[in-house]
Amino acid sequence: MKTIALLTDFGHNDAYVGIMKGVILGINPGVRMVDLTHGIRHQDVAQGALSLKAAYSYFPPQTIFVCVVDPGVGSQRQAILVKTKKYYFLAPDNGLLTPALDREKDFEIYSITNDRFFLKPVSYTFHGRDIFASVAAHLSKGVEPGQFGPRQEDCIRLKFPVPKVDRRHQKVDGEVIDWDIFGNIVTNIEPRHVEFMERDLNIQISGKTIKKVSASYADVHPGEYLAIWGSKGYLEISVNHGSAKEMLGVPKGARVEISG
Amino acid sequence: MKTIALLTDFGHNDAYVGIMKGVILGINPGVRMVDLTHGIRHQDVAQGALSLKAAYSYFPPQTIFVCVVDPGVGSQRQAILVKTKKYYFLAPDNGLLTPALDREKDFEIYSITNDRFFLKPVSYTFHGRDIFASVAAHLSKGVEPGQFGPRQEDCIRLKFPVPKVDRRHQKVDGEVIDWDIFGNIVTNIEPRHVEFMERDLNIQISGKTIKKVSASYADVHPGEYLAIWGSKGYLEISVNHGSAKEMLGVPKGARVEISG
Amino acid sequence: MKTIALLTDFGHNDAYVGIMKGVILGINPGVRMVDLTHGIRHQDVAQGALSLKAAYSYFPPQTIFVCVVDPGVGSQRQAILVKTKKYYFLAPDNGLLTPALDREKDFEIYSITNDRFFLKPVSYTFHGRDIFASVAAHLSKGVEPGQFGPRQEDCIRLKFPVPKVDRRHQKVDGEVIDWDIFGNIVTNIEPRHVEFMERDLNIQISGKTIKKVSASYADVHPGEYLAIWGSKGYLEISVNHGSAKEMLGVPKGARVEISG
Repeated sequence: MKTIALLTDFGHNDAYVGIMKGVILGINPGVRMVDLTHGIRHQDVAQGALSLKAAYSYFPPQTIFVCVVDPGVGSQRQAILVKTKKYYFLAPDNGLLTPALDREKDFEIYSITNDRFFLKPVSYTFHGRDIFASVAAHLSKGVEPGQFGPRQEDCIRLKFPVPKVDRRHQKVDGEVIDWDIFGNIVTNIEPRHVEFMERDLNIQISGKTIKKVSASYADVHPGEYLAIWGSKGYLEISVNHGSAKEMLGVPKGARVEISG
Repeated sequence: MKTIALLTDFGHNDAYVGIMKGVILGINPGVRMVDLTHGIRHQDVAQGALSLKAAYSYFPPQTIFVCVVDPGVGSQRQAILVKTKKYYFLAPDNGLLTPALDREKDFEIYSITNDRFFLKPVSYTFHGRDIFASVAAHLSKGVEPGQFGPRQEDCIRLKFPVPKVDRRHQKVDGEVIDWDIFGNIVTNIEPRHVEFMERDLNIQISGKTIKKVSASYADVHPGEYLAIWGSKGYLEISVNHGSAKEMLGVPKGARVEISG
Repeated sequence: MKTIALLTDFGHNDAYVGIMKGVILGINPGVRMVDLTHGIRHQDVAQGALSLKAAYSYFPPQTIFVCVVDPGVGSQRQAILVKTKKYYFLAPDNGLLTPALDREKDFEIYSITNDRFFLKPVSYTFHGRDIFASVAAHLSKGVEPGQFGPRQEDCIRLKFPVPKVDRRHQKVDGEVIDWDIFGNIVTNIEPRHVEFMERDLNIQISGKTIKKVSASYADVHPGEYLAIWGSKGYLEISVNHGSAKEMLGVPKGARVEISG
């Protein structure tokens, strides 16, 4: 049974996701559908890209990822299909696939242009239904990628902030890139950025200092800050039994300074 | 594999929907279940009806729609099963199926009265579990509609507001009927209401004027209002990269005036 | 087809639940997954326990329940697998299974220690992915419970408040233990606590008096309070067409006094 995994910013208050599933089942009743998440902040392509990166590699080979965070719907932005060695990705060409493609070296990109596989008339506002769901369902039935449109050379890439590493002064300057529903703050600092450091990490964020990386939330008392290597592979700032996001109030892009 | 699609106002904070799925699987482990939406505003039968209308026709034939927005649960209101040419609908008899039945001309309505197919004891507050989920599962296993209870002539219909069309003065008076999670405002104006108009539409809502219908959100600058034919078939008022609902603050029933 | 049912406090804004499903499908593509709920209040083990109790018995035999409300993730707390006559339960050993095990008399508890069935490296913060999802998937493929680790005698139990029953003065003192998304307030009073009472129940909560138990919300006018036997088997305090939780503002543990 082929799997179609869905990631959108459509939320759960409307039937948009349900409609996409209806379209898919109408074309391929034999497919399995899984929700990756529909809680991406509205039109936050970067957050969608990071969520996709954190999730896709756990899925079985041949999974088709349908990713719709699409502020440009109805405009001239292209819809694309990317085939990697293990997976298929469908998305608007707006950078949503950036971190996934940074990791997958070997892939082919196709423009989705063949309206034979669209639901018609194609609306101006809901390509998730009229293009992405419909194309994904046909793909899951065995239609070849090349049938949906011609190859294109590259696709739009988002620039994600990269930490500044200063080996000489034993410093790393990173920043906040996301947070989760528990209030854990995700930074852009990965183990490889700090592995040269000779002493325990000293982490500064918004005037607070955290003096080491903990191995578990329970390392500190309830209500206290800690730093921890999070499940997405980044350094996270948390509060045991609390919300670091609420307590610190830092926005995306806030500075995180590490010294060794 | 038969499909049961679920639409409720139960939200996602409680296990109510999960319990309905347990009941269904307990009776028919071979059925597929899809969430249409569980985010209907509490007890807002009209919103549930509009969501169902926007969604059902995309599903494969023989889909069973279980629709539970049920302020009258436990009272004398009837539970009904409607069989159309393509689909089955289960719902409290409170108008929830109105727009779907307005479109489907040919159908049979059954009262759901045969408690042989209920979970017992039937609670006073959760017929979604004790009646609708259970009956849907039996229906998906091939029980004939007539087994659940006798035919009834008609069911309760909601009155949805219809735009006033004044051809002579080239005017249409509609109103706000819904909005979505992106803040797009849905009006009750369809293309057929304005097709007689000779010039670009001039749309007034809450003191704002919009001078045409756009083909995409990107037609206007970020933060600006636009009107667009939405994916549900109605004229919608939106803000590019913003929320028209928040910016205008208009309630359901607010007036939308169009002149040609 | 085996069923894995998921209950977590992960919410829907992040891909955590989607990732768990990816892990499960990667190991056993033939399993069915159902969401019980992911809306448990963060780290509220007691609420998770009550939700599980309200839901699990509706599922078909052999269902595997994966329950992750886990404030102690990464600490020394044990992960356990409980096999009852009909079901399997996976959870941190923190009391989450208490009410389910109070009902199921006959069961075996296993420590989950065999890291052959874990995703490696095991993170400090997401055992839902690295341990629970992975073990559940292997269990659904037929791995014997004893393979995951040794038997353990007992597991941690939560103490839930029990109503004080005073037969002599015809009084019962209970308390608020939960509420749902409709604002229905759940008390810990069950029919067996009050069956000795000789007259209609007189219910006091937060200065309000309710003079009987209603058979349906429609028993009172919109906006009025009522008491009703809820679908979870407890006495609930509700408002017809309104939210008792919002109107009364009572916290968990608030007193509910009944006299006969």
